[in-house]
Amino acid sequence: METPLEKALATLVYTFHKYSGKEGDKFTLSKMELKELVKKELALGEKMKDSGIDKLMGTLDKNNDDEIDFKEYTGFLSALCMTYNDFFQQDAK
Amino acid sequence: METPLEKALATLVYTFHKYSGKEGDKFTLSKMELKELVKKELALGEKMKDSGIDKLMGTLDKNNDDEIDFKEYTGFLSALCMTYNDFFQQDAK
Repeated sequence: METPLEKALATLVYTFHKYSGKEGDKFTLSKMELKELVKKELALGEKMKDSGIDKLMGTLDKNNDDEIDFKEYTGFLSALCMTYNDFFQQDAK
Repeated sequence: METPLEKALATLVYTFHKYSGKEGDKFTLSKMELKELVKKELALGEKMKDSGIDKLMGTLDKNNDDEIDFKEYTGFLSALCMTYNDFFQQDAK
């Protein structure tokens, strides 16, 4: 039986591929695909302007190939998790 | 409304704290807490021997303080995600 943690990890993988397959290389996110993912899957993305997406793309795209591969995506998720954890820990104090 | 991706990220944070609070520093995982998390929350952990836990602890504990902090935990999750993604991509080819 799949545990909550395994379901969560599977969701992270599924969400990447939900958008990465839309254009170009189906295993990487173009800027358009990243923008759509962020705007549809993250509350913080709803109000994000194109300049914010450009900045995010620049931060995540470590090898400067204008694509976000899965490893770069996990870096993004780790940063998001760290932010969530900071809120969690402040609440717990 | 919380999206699936946000629910997944919250689950990752919640799972860490479900175990980190059991002994010692409530914001880090001791070896015992890591062992319990891996055995209860991951299928791969069910059959893992203590030697496997020791090895995992050694790999994750980047600053050698015998504790896994949240950042080290996200490194573990990223590695797990990369493994899940490899399976996903092989299936998709």
